[in-house]
Amino acid sequence: MSRLLYLLAFLTLLGVGRSEYEATWASLDTRPLPAWYDGAKVGIFIHWGVFSVPSFGSEWFWENWQGSHIKSYVDFMEKNYRPNFTYPDFAPLFTAEFYNPEQWASVFNASGARYVVLTSKHHEGFTNWPSRYSWNWNSMDVGPKRDLLGDLAKAIRSTTPDIHFGLYHSMFEWFHPLYLDDKANKYATNNFVVSKTMPELYELVNTYHPEVIWSDGDWEAPDWYWNSTVFLAWLFNDSPVKDTVVANDRWGSGIPCHHGSYYTCSDRYNPGVLQPHKWENCMTLDKGSWGYRREAVLSDYLTIHDLITTLAETISCGGNLLINVGPTHDGRIPAIMEERLRQLGSWLDINGEAVYDTTPWQHQNDTVTPGVWYTSKDDLVYTIVLNWPENDELVLGALVPTASTNVTMLGYPKDALQMGSVRASNITVSFPPMSDVSSQWAWVLVWSGVTPA
Amino acid sequence: MSRLLYLLAFLTLLGVGRSEYEATWASLDTRPLPAWYDGAKVGIFIHWGVFSVPSFGSEWFWENWQGSHIKSYVDFMEKNYRPNFTYPDFAPLFTAEFYNPEQWASVFNASGARYVVLTSKHHEGFTNWPSRYSWNWNSMDVGPKRDLLGDLAKAIRSTTPDIHFGLYHSMFEWFHPLYLDDKANKYATNNFVVSKTMPELYELVNTYHPEVIWSDGDWEAPDWYWNSTVFLAWLFNDSPVKDTVVANDRWGSGIPCHHGSYYTCSDRYNPGVLQPHKWENCMTLDKGSWGYRREAVLSDYLTIHDLITTLAETISCGGNLLINVGPTHDGRIPAIMEERLRQLGSWLDINGEAVYDTTPWQHQNDTVTPGVWYTSKDDLVYTIVLNWPENDELVLGALVPTASTNVTMLGYPKDALQMGSVRASNITVSFPPMSDVSSQWAWVLVWSGVTPA
Amino acid sequence: MSRLLYLLAFLTLLGVGRSEYEATWASLDTRPLPAWYDGAKVGIFIHWGVFSVPSFGSEWFWENWQGSHIKSYVDFMEKNYRPNFTYPDFAPLFTAEFYNPEQWASVFNASGARYVVLTSKHHEGFTNWPSRYSWNWNSMDVGPKRDLLGDLAKAIRSTTPDIHFGLYHSMFEWFHPLYLDDKANKYATNNFVVSKTMPELYELVNTYHPEVIWSDGDWEAPDWYWNSTVFLAWLFNDSPVKDTVVANDRWGSGIPCHHGSYYTCSDRYNPGVLQPHKWENCMTLDKGSWGYRREAVLSDYLTIHDLITTLAETISCGGNLLINVGPTHDGRIPAIMEERLRQLGSWLDINGEAVYDTTPWQHQNDTVTPGVWYTSKDDLVYTIVLNWPENDELVLGALVPTASTNVTMLGYPKDALQMGSVRASNITVSFPPMSDVSSQWAWVLVWSGVTPA
Amino acid sequence: MSRLLYLLAFLTLLGVGRSEYEATWASLDTRPLPAWYDGAKVGIFIHWGVFSVPSFGSEWFWENWQGSHIKSYVDFMEKNYRPNFTYPDFAPLFTAEFYNPEQWASVFNASGARYVVLTSKHHEGFTNWPSRYSWNWNSMDVGPKRDLLGDLAKAIRSTTPDIHFGLYHSMFEWFHPLYLDDKANKYATNNFVVSKTMPELYELVNTYHPEVIWSDGDWEAPDWYWNSTVFLAWLFNDSPVKDTVVANDRWGSGIPCHHGSYYTCSDRYNPGVLQPHKWENCMTLDKGSWGYRREAVLSDYLTIHDLITTLAETISCGGNLLINVGPTHDGRIPAIMEERLRQLGSWLDINGEAVYDTTPWQHQNDTVTPGVWYTSKDDLVYTIVLNWPENDELVLGALVPTASTNVTMLGYPKDALQMGSVRASNITVSFPPMSDVSSQWAWVLVWSGVTPA
Repeated sequence: MSRLLYLLAFLTLLGVGRSEYEATWASLDTRPLPAWYDGAKVGIFIHWGVFSVPSFGSEWFWENWQGSHIKSYVDFMEKNYRPNFTYPDFAPLFTAEFYNPEQWASVFNASGARYVVLTSKHHEGFTNWPSRYSWNWNSMDVGPKRDLLGDLAKAIRSTTPDIHFGLYHSMFEWFHPLYLDDKANKYATNNFVVSKTMPELYELVNTYHPEVIWSDGDWEAPDWYWNSTVFLAWLFNDSPVKDTVVANDRWGSGIPCHHGSYYTCSDRYNPGVLQPHKWENCMTLDKGSWGYRREAVLSDYLTIHDLITTLAETISCGGNLLINVGPTHDGRIPAIMEERLRQLGSWLDINGEAVYDTTPWQHQNDTVTPGVWYTSKDDLVYTIVLNWPENDELVLGALVPTASTNVTMLGYPKDALQMGSVRASNITVSFPPMSDVSSQWAWVLVWSGVTPA
Repeated sequence: MSRLLYLLAFLTLLGVGRSEYEATWASLDTRPLPAWYDGAKVGIFIHWGVFSVPSFGSEWFWENWQGSHIKSYVDFMEKNYRPNFTYPDFAPLFTAEFYNPEQWASVFNASGARYVVLTSKHHEGFTNWPSRYSWNWNSMDVGPKRDLLGDLAKAIRSTTPDIHFGLYHSMFEWFHPLYLDDKANKYATNNFVVSKTMPELYELVNTYHPEVIWSDGDWEAPDWYWNSTVFLAWLFNDSPVKDTVVANDRWGSGIPCHHGSYYTCSDRYNPGVLQPHKWENCMTLDKGSWGYRREAVLSDYLTIHDLITTLAETISCGGNLLINVGPTHDGRIPAIMEERLRQLGSWLDINGEAVYDTTPWQHQNDTVTPGVWYTSKDDLVYTIVLNWPENDELVLGALVPTASTNVTMLGYPKDALQMGSVRASNITVSFPPMSDVSSQWAWVLVWSGVTPA
Repeated sequence: MSRLLYLLAFLTLLGVGRSEYEATWASLDTRPLPAWYDGAKVGIFIHWGVFSVPSFGSEWFWENWQGSHIKSYVDFMEKNYRPNFTYPDFAPLFTAEFYNPEQWASVFNASGARYVVLTSKHHEGFTNWPSRYSWNWNSMDVGPKRDLLGDLAKAIRSTTPDIHFGLYHSMFEWFHPLYLDDKANKYATNNFVVSKTMPELYELVNTYHPEVIWSDGDWEAPDWYWNSTVFLAWLFNDSPVKDTVVANDRWGSGIPCHHGSYYTCSDRYNPGVLQPHKWENCMTLDKGSWGYRREAVLSDYLTIHDLITTLAETISCGGNLLINVGPTHDGRIPAIMEERLRQLGSWLDINGEAVYDTTPWQHQNDTVTPGVWYTSKDDLVYTIVLNWPENDELVLGALVPTASTNVTMLGYPKDALQMGSVRASNITVSFPPMSDVSSQWAWVLVWSGVTPA
Repeated sequence: MSRLLYLLAFLTLLGVGRSEYEATWASLDTRPLPAWYDGAKVGIFIHWGVFSVPSFGSEWFWENWQGSHIKSYVDFMEKNYRPNFTYPDFAPLFTAEFYNPEQWASVFNASGARYVVLTSKHHEGFTNWPSRYSWNWNSMDVGPKRDLLGDLAKAIRSTTPDIHFGLYHSMFEWFHPLYLDDKANKYATNNFVVSKTMPELYELVNTYHPEVIWSDGDWEAPDWYWNSTVFLAWLFNDSPVKDTVVANDRWGSGIPCHHGSYYTCSDRYNPGVLQPHKWENCMTLDKGSWGYRREAVLSDYLTIHDLITTLAETISCGGNLLINVGPTHDGRIPAIMEERLRQLGSWLDINGEAVYDTTPWQHQNDTVTPGVWYTSKDDLVYTIVLNWPENDELVLGALVPTASTNVTMLGYPKDALQMGSVRASNITVSFPPMSDVSSQWAWVLVWSGVTPA
């Protein structure tokens, strides 16, 4: 979008009053959350960029190396690269020769995810699409010579109809000189926002129609510096995705956890208790990094049990789970990540009923047995049991049975399970023979006719 | 070893008669198999070399590209490299910067393996040690600038006392001009063997003391061209590893499956019936390649159930299992491979009693239920059950119980299992509740007081 | 310069009327040419940039390859680089490891040049200084990791006091998306000028204080698009170099040869007749390119005789000579170029009196003998003779001797030369024995007491 | 050549007595020098190899860096390359994309040279032809992917019939492990010679038919280690070039300056007095290196006057001049070197009569005036005058005129020169007006009817 068109857009916003939302949080916060998002529950996060070339440490490689001068990063460079090698020198090595977006889409779909969020641009500023505002620092001009983002959008939309396509976007860029100028001016100037951040965001939305805007990199400056509310008003009133788009909460210092379609609050946010506002737990399969890092060993990756545990904890408290993978510089999703996603998908194939389109129940987790979480849908209550109970007897404290209570297990089609008598407000359920159960790693009980304790 | 010393060694062999073995198969075949090898059962194979740089297709990259001109290889090069890029041009990119042999040793140990076999040199001719016969085509002179082989030997020996260290070695080299000369001469000349193969083999043994010599690349020429029996006579009579070394059977056309400490016969050799001679099943976690290939996706890797199945089939018939991993050009064992190895190790932690130091039983697999394999040790018989039986009842046809028969399950410490009555020569065993059993993927019954049917 | 400061500068210009020049050509053209420039006569032009990496064809490599698709460029890339290699991928290979600006300054000084003009940025847009408006496309962020421009400025100023430091700057950039937008809009928008060209020009002047602004790349758009007159008014009124700076004439379509401190009109402009306005002949030692190109052979370079010929022709007609050299990607001035410069310097050591601080005479070249050019200073007339006359007798038609006429030769200190009698308005001068003359390649006669014919 | 054929060749030598020369110096020294060589006088030496990639310091880069650890080399590597970068890692960067052997031949021909000597292999061991004894360390297997040597041989022979093609060959290789073994064994073993040096030399001669064998790298070991006399006997008796080949004198410690077709004695050997045996002065245009080095500036190169001076000094004393050029890694002869060669050629076009096919005279240089050298042919005497005499009067002391004495100057076709009277045994020659003389840099007088003083 040219500066001129952007100005016109702005004037339009000030215009005839036909717009639904004003550029204030008070107004923006009145917008209802598009329904698809809460029902989706599970999304895939993808961190991919020039940091995938060194693929060491984390996606904060540049900052850790040349901003904070963290020893391991400095040592890595000194040991493996010529002196004077710069971070932008990595870009031509971002080759993506194995990048197959249809195959990615297929893996994401097999995981059971219902949306995907790709880093359009991380704090390094490199854009995974041919941005006209990031000349020679984008995936078409250097390295892959390809519209990485556009090709994934197309693959997702054409091959996986259940998946919504979204984009991560970093507001600030660690080393952009215009940003550093504005910052040095204590944000009295906003050359960076006017010539870079905003034009890019409009370009992104108008070109790729993302249904999630996952903003980040906002924390150093207030929302009025970023011009966030003006953008969101346009996004919700006039953009091509105005009816379906959701935006997270990272729109300026003080904003996260207070405004936005849904809250992320912090990375790996997992409060463990019910939240009054829709939220999302973004986390990553490699416990130590969002971007791919070559030195990660098996123990650095979440097990499938860890992953299902986090999913249960998250959705029980009203959150969505955004599971991050870090592709390699040559465009592959490492097999260990593919395995976790497919394992999750196989679990959801059996137990998805307890996940998709559910709402939190009165209790989030059980009052007696740890590792037991609840969701609900209509008049059904789902109990997600993360560990097979000792002696096959599960004791629950959060449920009160009634005369009509019935309980079954997903993946055990045979019969209703047996309940013991209620003792000291606790109810006991007898698990079926494990060898008759098709679910692995965690098990879901489906209750009808119960009330919360 | 210099030519002169080699000559001396040769003369010595012709010498005073004190040597135990003569350079004939008749004599060499009289040597007993060193005991450690049969008891070890499980080894790790490692394919690592310059082929790990393109890491595309397979470790036969060079031959497939420039020998056979297979289209996918030709296309890969045309698409990703400049014209005139040669295979040796890959060598400087073999960087191995993440190579941590102690960490490798730790992973191999965790797998339960009792020996390791590294490619000292594959058909490409690149030596992973600083061979004086492979100047500028070895891991010290180009690329890693490191004795990859020696560093692994040291790590294995110093940190994993249960693991024996062995070496793979290719006799021929696809494109070595001296070999091609000899070949063109129909092996009437042997310049290649005299100046390359034999000096290297002696150098390898004298320097690194390998306890396995896993010969390969022998098939185009007869054993007399390779001078194999002379080498083996030296290996068994005079080498520093003469008491413990084992050698496979790939020592010239017509030799495999007929001579050698143990037989490999073919890749992935898994006859399914008892063999009269010690043998080994070498196979690979990536079903499509021995060397690492980047394009492999999850479905290309064996599952842990596949792997345990192959182990059971192999050892029941008298074989050892050599499980291959392909490290990356930068020195890492991919996490998916580490996972398979650690899964196997966790299974062997419980069930290793049925594996190590066992011998085949009278029956190899059950006569009634498929997926059931037998091993034995002293007067115990082990039944490896690859699939949990339906209704928790396993029917076996190969065993005849006696009055003193007792059966337990490894990983189920509580009680002996219940046997049903013998019906139509079949015996039934009741499996315990699966939730009380600690083993996953496959289960081992331990019998005493039984006889074969 | 931030946008804010730029605005302030603009407002200042509209301000209190104390400014000498208005932002109109009528006003700007009234500024007298700073005296140093006309007296300097000889300058060095330096074309250095990312094009010095392929160093093939010419400094128009990018445009010729990917804009015009000229076959030789397309072939060069296909033959020597991987598919998908982009022009920006060349930047990390711009290493400049041999760049020694003090040594450059020393060579330029030895050439007799009195000013130097370096490409701060060519049409490719890569800035040889750490421009804050050209992030990751400048010599500090990629490639040399050095302020190439600043280091040369410092070396010139600290070691060669006779040399003025100037800068070439391209207004447009072939492939800058903002420029292409403005162009597509038929220059109704000027985002590129506002966010790139002008901020960079102000930054350049304020940071490096160049005394020549050699503008280029202006021809596709009118001066009002470039905002040229506003910049020049600032440059002449308020900039740190307002008293000494000279600016050429390439400030928009239709402007060259009509406005500016001096005119360049075209590349290699050498009109051969006296010009009414100060002008400059920019030309290059490699006849085929301004940037270094590796395929140039000896015959592609001007001989020293060619160079002195061009110098004589140029200064006789009122021009300055700007002699171009193309350094290599690793920072060297090729020895053949150094030789030409030192040869010129050795000629100027003897004959500089006829060059520096001279003015054109009534005749520019002789009316009888070709290859003879005139300059003058006070009441002296200089005759530059490009070829030693046959039989050592030079016939001239442009001079009328008087009673007091005296003629000597520079580099022949012995006596005045002998004149023959005037015949048919021609005068004859006897050249001394060549073996007594120290000048090579061309010879200068110094006349007093003559009048023009 | 295979080992077998080599053995046959050896046996043949011992054979039927029809061989002219025995493998002893006494016998080999009886061979007359093939006539072409003495008449040729001027040759071109070419140092090209992997050292042309760093092109820093000298062609001894590897040894100076990793053998002697000379600081400037160590610093260069530390500053510009990653740690662990090895010398063989340079080989893929030896691209030769501009290599045009026909153009080289054309330049050599224009220089007036009558033979060319290319480094087939320098001490680094890299062969510029696809040697079967230097697998993966030759110009076909890595880097250029081209038979550099063969292509030059073909170009020379097909386009420049006056030029003989010869080859430089290094006996030892600094870092070859087999050589280092032999050396450590005090040359009691000769594995290196048997498997590398000799097979390569036979392969070279049989494949490329060189007419000069310029041996080098011999000095650490005696001739019997190198097997030199056996090779030379074959070369002179049976090789395809037995009738025309010349071999220099570097065939083992103690041999240079004592045996061989011609003597080189040392680099830049220029004794200044007549030698009893044919010799050659090999020298290089870059005073500091034989291989191309990028840091060389103009003053590092010989001037054309230096070059002609050396030529005169050399041929007057019976030597040939072998002028070295160092092409770049991408296959170019730098323009400054091309210029020197073409300047020499332009001088020889006029003065070649005093050079080609001449023999030393009784005096080598003049007894009175320095910088004056003599050659002769039949009854003519040539005086090469390196500096134009003061007052155009040259005084000579080495000549005695007779009644029939006549003297002319090459490039001055008009008249015989005037002689003054003989005073104190000196004779004076009046030089013509310099402006009538076509030769530059040095001048040749041609005498008939004179006798030596």
